[in-house]
Amino acid sequence: MRILIVGLGVVGGSYAMALKEAGYEDVYGLDTDLDTLKKAENLRIIKKGYIDGTDIVEKCDLIILSIYPRLVKKFIQDNKNRFKKGTVITDATGIKEMFINDILEILPSNVDFIFGHPMAGREKKGIDYASSKVFKGANYLITTIDSNKEENIKLIEKLAYNIGFKKVRRITPKYHDEMISFTSQLPHAIAVALINSDEEGRDTGSFIGDSYRDLTRIANINEELWSELFLGNKSNLIKVIDEFEVELKKIKIALENNNNKCLKELFVKSTKRREKL
Amino acid sequence: MRILIVGLGVVGGSYAMALKEAGYEDVYGLDTDLDTLKKAENLRIIKKGYIDGTDIVEKCDLIILSIYPRLVKKFIQDNKNRFKKGTVITDATGIKEMFINDILEILPSNVDFIFGHPMAGREKKGIDYASSKVFKGANYLITTIDSNKEENIKLIEKLAYNIGFKKVRRITPKYHDEMISFTSQLPHAIAVALINSDEEGRDTGSFIGDSYRDLTRIANINEELWSELFLGNKSNLIKVIDEFEVELKKIKIALENNNNKCLKELFVKSTKRREKL
Repeated sequence: MRILIVGLGVVGGSYAMALKEAGYEDVYGLDTDLDTLKKAENLRIIKKGYIDGTDIVEKCDLIILSIYPRLVKKFIQDNKNRFKKGTVITDATGIKEMFINDILEILPSNVDFIFGHPMAGREKKGIDYASSKVFKGANYLITTIDSNKEENIKLIEKLAYNIGFKKVRRITPKYHDEMISFTSQLPHAIAVALINSDEEGRDTGSFIGDSYRDLTRIANINEELWSELFLGNKSNLIKVIDEFEVELKKIKIALENNNNKCLKELFVKSTKRREKL
Repeated sequence: MRILIVGLGVVGGSYAMALKEAGYEDVYGLDTDLDTLKKAENLRIIKKGYIDGTDIVEKCDLIILSIYPRLVKKFIQDNKNRFKKGTVITDATGIKEMFINDILEILPSNVDFIFGHPMAGREKKGIDYASSKVFKGANYLITTIDSNKEENIKLIEKLAYNIGFKKVRRITPKYHDEMISFTSQLPHAIAVALINSDEEGRDTGSFIGDSYRDLTRIANINEELWSELFLGNKSNLIKVIDEFEVELKKIKIALENNNNKCLKELFVKSTKRREKL
């Protein structure tokens, strides 16, 4: 099976490394950045790098897209006459419902797009931060659509396990976006709001412990990617922000009322839930 | 210098371990739990454990209190006639202003209480989770009061550096509580609200990545301790919750207005601030 990774950033680079470790040999890379392709070639995590799809897309059986959501559509459009019949395409996009509908408008009928979401990433950009380790033990979500062939879904599932993911689940795009708004986008919104609510110019660094460090790690955020993810899942995200605000207000009201009992109940609930995770 | 650690829980136990590693030999423990004392003796991190202060308090030069805030006052009261003249007392309490005023009402004049806050801890309780590692590279805050002797403040500073803290700062109790409401209590409130806002009974664990894990780690929270800390610093905490809510609302409004530009600006700001940390 010949594999093409499109976009050798932090996620695509990690794919290339993990595929190599898992014994996949016939792996190629496509990226607009020559330096990145050179690095990937020098690391021997791809056989050869390409700056556009002209010579390589038609030769590949599996294409892994790890590029910004809006570039996925562009890639499909630019290469629609190049795909080999039966090519399997998969992606790493963090939102699904609106995104999939958008892609399906232009997807050629001779390819099978298995939409996937590896729940692993890093706050940094670029191949220099790539590492196969990020996939180890992580969750992988597949959002199937009616036209997907079972054998192709199985191929992606197997590949996910082979490169280190621990749990692979099939779900609907709608459910994916509901869950992800809560488990991924809401935490990012919170981290951004937390650090942005600091007063300008204070020496906050002298007053922090692990809790502040942990809660703001993802406030270091790729603004191009995450603005797309947020807006592409906005109704779900607004809903979970609202629900979060309700819970935060409970704490505030307990404080205002000196309600020690209520505070403790909220803490006991959160502790139980965290221990269950 | 003979040292007594009062409360051999996760913080006190970590103190005992770190003191031993730093070469302090004459260290004793006081705890209401016999098992804990036995464990500490077996680990040889204390010379001997005591279940009450009768025989040991009067013999010590430095007393480190790592017990719940409300128990600090009780300890002082119970032992006020036992302290040796010139004994230095320090603590590990996460709030200071109201707490210090409370203690000063009953503090005997023959001891010097250097109020301290080691910014290190763990979400778990008890000596089994103690580790000297938590102090390594961490921040230590000393909130001085007028009656403190310079030589005693220096003693605590030196001890903090000796057991692994990287940065020791002297600040006022008022400023301490302002900063800590933001860097410590607000993150805990957020983590609790985040996990409590999850819908009951979902298999959330299959949909999480590192971001949700990081942001909810401290939702596993000691409800006795943290309800005291929250209520003991309530006006500061309510203020920073309000400020956080304003920032979160900016994100929500940008989403509602499909304002990609505004979202990106918020992300660029948070990224810059995080990189500066």
